[in-house]
Amino acid sequence: MKAARAFAPASIGNVAVGFDMLGHALQGAGDTATVRLTTSGTVRVTAIRGVVADLPTRAKDNTAGRALLGLAKLRPGVGFEVELDKGIPLGSGMGGSAASAVAALVAANSLLTKPVPLETLYDLAMDGEAAASGSKHGDNVAPMLLGGLVIAPVYGVPVRVPVPSTLFCALVHPHFVLETRKSRAALKGAYELHDFVVQSEGLALLLAGCWQKDFELIRRGFRDVLVEPRRARLIPGFARVKEAALDSGALGSSISGGGPSVFAWFDSKAKAQKAGAAMAQAFRSVKLGADVLVSKVAAPGARVL
Amino acid sequence: MKAARAFAPASIGNVAVGFDMLGHALQGAGDTATVRLTTSGTVRVTAIRGVVADLPTRAKDNTAGRALLGLAKLRPGVGFEVELDKGIPLGSGMGGSAASAVAALVAANSLLTKPVPLETLYDLAMDGEAAASGSKHGDNVAPMLLGGLVIAPVYGVPVRVPVPSTLFCALVHPHFVLETRKSRAALKGAYELHDFVVQSEGLALLLAGCWQKDFELIRRGFRDVLVEPRRARLIPGFARVKEAALDSGALGSSISGGGPSVFAWFDSKAKAQKAGAAMAQAFRSVKLGADVLVSKVAAPGARVL
Repeated sequence: MKAARAFAPASIGNVAVGFDMLGHALQGAGDTATVRLTTSGTVRVTAIRGVVADLPTRAKDNTAGRALLGLAKLRPGVGFEVELDKGIPLGSGMGGSAASAVAALVAANSLLTKPVPLETLYDLAMDGEAAASGSKHGDNVAPMLLGGLVIAPVYGVPVRVPVPSTLFCALVHPHFVLETRKSRAALKGAYELHDFVVQSEGLALLLAGCWQKDFELIRRGFRDVLVEPRRARLIPGFARVKEAALDSGALGSSISGGGPSVFAWFDSKAKAQKAGAAMAQAFRSVKLGADVLVSKVAAPGARVL
Repeated sequence: MKAARAFAPASIGNVAVGFDMLGHALQGAGDTATVRLTTSGTVRVTAIRGVVADLPTRAKDNTAGRALLGLAKLRPGVGFEVELDKGIPLGSGMGGSAASAVAALVAANSLLTKPVPLETLYDLAMDGEAAASGSKHGDNVAPMLLGGLVIAPVYGVPVRVPVPSTLFCALVHPHFVLETRKSRAALKGAYELHDFVVQSEGLALLLAGCWQKDFELIRRGFRDVLVEPRRARLIPGFARVKEAALDSGALGSSISGGGPSVFAWFDSKAKAQKAGAAMAQAFRSVKLGADVLVSKVAAPGARVL
């Protein structure tokens, strides 16, 4: 039986200015999927190991399983068995649900005589992730597929944004679980057009800063007036952690994906490392243990192992 | 008495994806201001000529007058007299209010021993335009000052976005007046977060397309799900005019600023010219005369004459 393994990195969704449509890959954490090609025409999730084990194993309820079901549908007569090695904690805001789907798809696609194109993988990965999040959005799966900072539209291929090579991220993951569905529920309700304008300015300035390799433009654009204010209360100590990042020279700081992880961007690796320690310390001041991950923003995407 | 004249071009505000924060200059229409330096410490609007004459002449109610009052405040002992030659029709959605303010400021600033920096001019121009629109936004004044396509944040210097040199715009101005205030009133009410995500995708893809000189990305991004649906009914024939643009190969089409002018982007001058005629014909089919203006998107900004 033909088999392949693939790794998909963790990622930061939203990146403050781009709710549901901007994300970047992270180096140093991720999920691995081992996929076997079958002729069953269906999909089985045969094992889930690692930092998370308590996940649905019914294919259509599992993000990797649902993604592979979509792929199997496109190649009649083909089926898959998948084992997941989870390296991304559940409900951490690091895209764990997405990473399993992406790793499984990349491994499975490498086994096909006629692999599907990127656009199809992307769409299947979004469908897979929706099994966990309840909503279709590409801000985690797109950077996992392409690496780096990526514009993630709901339709069509995602677009990688070039970033300065010294742009670094510090992500601090506090030791508690915030369910994606709960985090999304906090966003219900009506929004003001004026807030959209302010947020759009931020998105445009941050993207301009990336293209022009201008850290000051990135700093000017880095904001979240839409989502962060509604989610901040779900994360104990958030204001202190963000303050610690900014006091350590961050270009900006916000919630990673649906939280509770908090991230910040820096113009050097050294600043990101120092700030990461200060941010973790701020979580400890509200009695939460926390792990730190420092990564290039231009981190690599998924790969066959 | 020292005097100077300056010209400021018309512009397209919003550019579909960037309500209140993105705009581009237009070649072929604009306002001219003739400014005399005085020691009165105040500002007088001494004449208004051209395609619009019926405008307030009290300095604080006139967009150029209000902008110059702001400049005079920064240079104690200095005053200005200004004559305006209006080349931009009133209530056309081509930034006429903004152009008078920008032309006056650029002329006046050239007369000062210590000119103010761009950031200050930009802020004063936004304050001036607010005399007419009732709201502070830079999507018209920023491209008038810098030329080309410009990100216009409410704070700090605007940022020019490089565009393909063959990116052209056709603007069609129907012969009726749509007051900016009425056009803004149509936007009241609540908005959905989902619509903002779709709009943000568009903004990001369009900007990516400009930086990467990729017309297909610009086409993918060109949309307005936020503002156009609420304003379209204020413009007779809008749907037909937009359809005529798209049928003629437009990358996208939407309302220019607060309307009623409609614009579209093209990947060549020839397409823009042909489409402009078709768009004007569509306005005629609803009994509206219309003028066509074809311009590079990278049109020049304001200049001292």
